[in-house]
Amino acid sequence: MTHKGYKNLTHQLQKFIEQKNNAKIIPLLEGLHAADLAEILDQLDFEDALYVIRLLESDVTADIIAELDDDLKEKILENLSAKEIAEEVEELETDDAADIIADLPEDKKVEVISHIDDKDHAKDIVELLRYDEDTAGGLMGKEYIKVNENWNVLRSVAEMRKQAEEMDKVHTIYVVDDHDRLEGRLSLKKLLTTSTKTPIKEVYNDNIHFVNVNDSADEVARVMQKYDLFVIPVVDEMGVLVGQITIDDVVDYIKEEAEKDYQMAAGISEDVEANDNLLQQMRARLPWLIVALVGGFISVIVLSGFGNAMNKYGTLFFFTPLIAATAGNVGVQSSAIVVQGLANGTLNGSIWKRLLKEVSLSLVNGIILAIILLLIGKFLLDHILTGFDMKMGITVAISLVTVIIMASLIGTFIPLFLHKRGIDPAVATGPFITTSNDIFGIYVFFTIAKLILGF
Amino acid sequence: MTHKGYKNLTHQLQKFIEQKNNAKIIPLLEGLHAADLAEILDQLDFEDALYVIRLLESDVTADIIAELDDDLKEKILENLSAKEIAEEVEELETDDAADIIADLPEDKKVEVISHIDDKDHAKDIVELLRYDEDTAGGLMGKEYIKVNENWNVLRSVAEMRKQAEEMDKVHTIYVVDDHDRLEGRLSLKKLLTTSTKTPIKEVYNDNIHFVNVNDSADEVARVMQKYDLFVIPVVDEMGVLVGQITIDDVVDYIKEEAEKDYQMAAGISEDVEANDNLLQQMRARLPWLIVALVGGFISVIVLSGFGNAMNKYGTLFFFTPLIAATAGNVGVQSSAIVVQGLANGTLNGSIWKRLLKEVSLSLVNGIILAIILLLIGKFLLDHILTGFDMKMGITVAISLVTVIIMASLIGTFIPLFLHKRGIDPAVATGPFITTSNDIFGIYVFFTIAKLILGF
Repeated sequence: MTHKGYKNLTHQLQKFIEQKNNAKIIPLLEGLHAADLAEILDQLDFEDALYVIRLLESDVTADIIAELDDDLKEKILENLSAKEIAEEVEELETDDAADIIADLPEDKKVEVISHIDDKDHAKDIVELLRYDEDTAGGLMGKEYIKVNENWNVLRSVAEMRKQAEEMDKVHTIYVVDDHDRLEGRLSLKKLLTTSTKTPIKEVYNDNIHFVNVNDSADEVARVMQKYDLFVIPVVDEMGVLVGQITIDDVVDYIKEEAEKDYQMAAGISEDVEANDNLLQQMRARLPWLIVALVGGFISVIVLSGFGNAMNKYGTLFFFTPLIAATAGNVGVQSSAIVVQGLANGTLNGSIWKRLLKEVSLSLVNGIILAIILLLIGKFLLDHILTGFDMKMGITVAISLVTVIIMASLIGTFIPLFLHKRGIDPAVATGPFITTSNDIFGIYVFFTIAKLILGF
Repeated sequence: MTHKGYKNLTHQLQKFIEQKNNAKIIPLLEGLHAADLAEILDQLDFEDALYVIRLLESDVTADIIAELDDDLKEKILENLSAKEIAEEVEELETDDAADIIADLPEDKKVEVISHIDDKDHAKDIVELLRYDEDTAGGLMGKEYIKVNENWNVLRSVAEMRKQAEEMDKVHTIYVVDDHDRLEGRLSLKKLLTTSTKTPIKEVYNDNIHFVNVNDSADEVARVMQKYDLFVIPVVDEMGVLVGQITIDDVVDYIKEEAEKDYQMAAGISEDVEANDNLLQQMRARLPWLIVALVGGFISVIVLSGFGNAMNKYGTLFFFTPLIAATAGNVGVQSSAIVVQGLANGTLNGSIWKRLLKEVSLSLVNGIILAIILLLIGKFLLDHILTGFDMKMGITVAISLVTVIIMASLIGTFIPLFLHKRGIDPAVATGPFITTSNDIFGIYVFFTIAKLILGF
């Protein structure tokens, strides 16, 4: 049944493990979904989790291992022998099997594969290991049903029965030619209502969406989402049907990508979770902080270059955080829009048109902010801030508009540039844009102040 | 037929529309998927798009309208009469139909519903309109197959045929009792291999995942993702089966939420796309910039409070951007981890444990950054920065560690607090955290400097 708390069950389980009371552990866990069992094991100490994995049958534990949290999965696999892993892998569909083997050290990989008894299964897994994990090939499985266009209905039904044996669920029946090239699909309804002698050629539907084995996972997600598909066939360069991708794997991919992009925008460079340990968290967060610190030093040096303003116009220095923060915020906004537009394909038109649009928008936003600034300057700061007069107010306002335009241009240009170079533009948002805009913003501010106030 | 460029086709289409050459438009668009047609219409001027919608049959245009970009959809619906909209809606599945009607003005809503000829369809749509769009009820459709546990196989097959007529695709056969309460599911295989007299009661599977009609869309997404489901049944408070959710709608929801969170983190408060017009972009971006500007003014006032340091320790003011940026970055990192942990349910344990972990991490990161700062101070700044000595370096280093700890606490605490109050913690990341940490950071920095250096 759905989503219950497992607190009680986990406590009982811990007690039974401590007592090594296997006779009670097995019935306690019986009938639970692998995803639930994985969630329960994630709560246990590693030794206890390993104990349960070793206790249960491999047809149960295989699915549990496939669902485990990455850290625990890795640790468990380290502690299982190649033969034990091969037994687990034997029970899994090819895509899950390949995912598990892909993470093993090279020599253990070979050993595990050699221990797989079903040689066809092993061959399929080896094929899947060739593909990059962020491509259609990396997402697909080798379990699908195909019939030859030259068979008749009777033979097709017989062959389908054979093929369907090792599958959880049949979604689509693919039709191929003599060279295994994808020709279309066959509806179950058609198959059941057509006379048994009819060749498949005459009844199949050639209107079918597919992806190429080298297409990116993003492209697969885009096509499946656009056409509301639950499964999509995968073909190689020759048009030969080589696999099938199911939407559940694409959902996992979409979720992971979204989390990675979000973390990247927040200056977290490795995929971490709230419960990861201190070292993992540090590795993910410290690099960007160091980048930002170096940026901070550059701004110290830039500011010191305008140090002679301090005697007469020291008040200017009170405005540096305001200018720097605005530059950073504007840059992040612009880059986020561009990064997202690139990711979901909604960004049309040329770079120049895009930059022009950002400049117009910044001009409008900048002028509104400048007016607010002048009003606050006139009615508040003029009275409470020594050294502030309207000439300085106008200086800050002009700088603000200039800095906003410049920051939005940088925020727009950098991700577009990275994208053209084949680099993931998501790295450009967050600390990188903020830091560079801080520095440029401060430099522009004091340069304008120098021109207007003269120091 | 997958993902080709439509540039040529769009150009041709524009030419034919200009010539009002309907005889050429219809065959040009024939056989294209509704999602492709929607993409093509999104490229046209509004008047041209409306022309095409009016030209094609409603069984084609209904699906196109359901797939259109929100802006164009809204404009098209404004220009169609209630009767015309009713004709479109009649062709759609209930969930898509309800989504279209939900966005209409109140009086038009009623009028459209009154024009729907199929009264059962209208009743289903009215029921769906009751639910909030971010709940299971808002995601579900009324198209599904159910059989009564007291029927026999023969009757079930006959009833299923009737129900299946108006459906695109059958995914699962649900089993209900005499009060329509969900009891389980029936596999097609079982149905086909069991004698026709057997009551359903004896052959159905009672192991089924379901959600409640009031469950949040997030919960639906979590359950479907966890158990790799393509469809999930929805029950009401009495356990009565009221609808079914398909994974394609959940995929759309997950994508939209991820984009919203990402934009929110970047200080963009409304859902906008790269190609939205200037006014929409401004409305989405300006509010946060104003918040940040107000924050900037507060930092001006805070800094002016330490203005008397300028004579002797003016160099301190060169470090404000460094301190402010570090505080902002650390705060955003901490809050992003918490926001994401809350969203995907990986954040376990108490608030105090969480805060303690962040403090430890900040202490480690802070000390490493402080050491880097002292080294750069000693070997670089000491020589090139007038007014800088190691006493000031130590002051900045101590401030840096303090500010990092404080910023991470604020970044952790605010989203947890908002979450407890029932507010979406995603609003806390981005400009809000950055701005408040800027101010606190600067205040802490100068307070510490005052204590150590004395001014």
